[in-house]
Amino acid sequence: MSGTLYGVGLGPGDPELITRKAARLIEKATVIAYPALAGEASLARSIAADLIPETAREIAMNIPMTVDRGPAQVAYDLAAVAVRAELDAGRDVVVLCEGDPFFYGSFMYLYARLKAEYAIEVVPGVTSMTACASVAGLPLSARNEVVTILPAPIFAGSETDGGPARVLEQSDTVVVMKLGRHFGVVRAAIDAAGLTDKAVYIERASTPHEVVLPLSQAPEKAPYFSMILIVKGADPWL
Amino acid sequence: MSGTLYGVGLGPGDPELITRKAARLIEKATVIAYPALAGEASLARSIAADLIPETAREIAMNIPMTVDRGPAQVAYDLAAVAVRAELDAGRDVVVLCEGDPFFYGSFMYLYARLKAEYAIEVVPGVTSMTACASVAGLPLSARNEVVTILPAPIFAGSETDGGPARVLEQSDTVVVMKLGRHFGVVRAAIDAAGLTDKAVYIERASTPHEVVLPLSQAPEKAPYFSMILIVKGADPWL
Repeated sequence: MSGTLYGVGLGPGDPELITRKAARLIEKATVIAYPALAGEASLARSIAADLIPETAREIAMNIPMTVDRGPAQVAYDLAAVAVRAELDAGRDVVVLCEGDPFFYGSFMYLYARLKAEYAIEVVPGVTSMTACASVAGLPLSARNEVVTILPAPIFAGSETDGGPARVLEQSDTVVVMKLGRHFGVVRAAIDAAGLTDKAVYIERASTPHEVVLPLSQAPEKAPYFSMILIVKGADPWL
Repeated sequence: MSGTLYGVGLGPGDPELITRKAARLIEKATVIAYPALAGEASLARSIAADLIPETAREIAMNIPMTVDRGPAQVAYDLAAVAVRAELDAGRDVVVLCEGDPFFYGSFMYLYARLKAEYAIEVVPGVTSMTACASVAGLPLSARNEVVTILPAPIFAGSETDGGPARVLEQSDTVVVMKLGRHFGVVRAAIDAAGLTDKAVYIERASTPHEVVLPLSQAPEKAPYFSMILIVKGADPWL
């Protein structure tokens, strides 16, 4: 009988924000897989490090970070081969995922390759989005407020279609994720919409390297794991 | 010295989806508060039941479910008085919150009333949104896809302004939350947008009463704790 594939959300970075279910699956795992950027330590592995049994077999999935998607797709093909061998041998595989596996998570690439043939269980995790709201002391949404999540790359070259500008104007709460090298153009769009005063910048929420600042005081450069929260709702409880 | 107020997210319903941080805070709590709808058992308390110490003092916040906001605001005023008394006596108070405290959560009403005077820590939790995606086997968003979250009540009477219809047309992923009595009008709008085939209905994700169905096969009536996920993205990994 084939093993089961578990896609396990680890939350935003603080090991204490791992769920009890994820912790138990990791603690009793015989095979653990995780993404690692070529040449770097795996962030996912570091979040779960205190739970990984010494006896577990580890599969590091080396994913190249290129704008062209081809190389990453090949890397997921290779990872699927390695995971498949374990499942076929009857061993369960626990895949470690930063945040939530199905919310901008890389687990879905493995999921797509294996879902037709194997039993797969996805364990949801705390997203960086609500972790950022918590550390910023900023309730994201109440009652009938609309929340829109915009990955930063869509701001690049969007001057003509107006998509992000319309969202900034119309949505009650806007979450801009994955700032990285698009931080400048995002910042300019928020400024043009007159929303800089309502924008909060958060970097690496819930980790020792956490940064929380009004957008107007944010540094020039932002890492990939950073976001901006814009909450327009007036205090909705008064 | 005053106590600290903890707003603790419990996740979508499965006690195993409570984070380790939330579990530890609850296990050592001396005072625990939670919302309860008038005359009913508290859902939040039931999720955390196995963790609550027998010795803990419990504060049930009786919140009326009325369309008019006035009575609920009075209830939160009263709850704040009770919580304040504990904090002033130097005792920490752990408030149990379904899902995530700052994502359509009622904790923010208490937060607004007490944040100026007391130390408050918010512990994020797994949202029902990603839990629904997990049980539906439906990745919510990849790469640069835009996600919009629409509370169902905004569909009522929106024929004229076109807001929800525009979101259904333009957003890559649409999450419609809190269906309840607005299920009919939401369903009609999704049908009019030609998206019924891409819509999945989920009720009480991660609980023993979980329901996952294509929207076309969903029951006539939906509870408050239900949602629809519409994911338009083609398999983005192939």
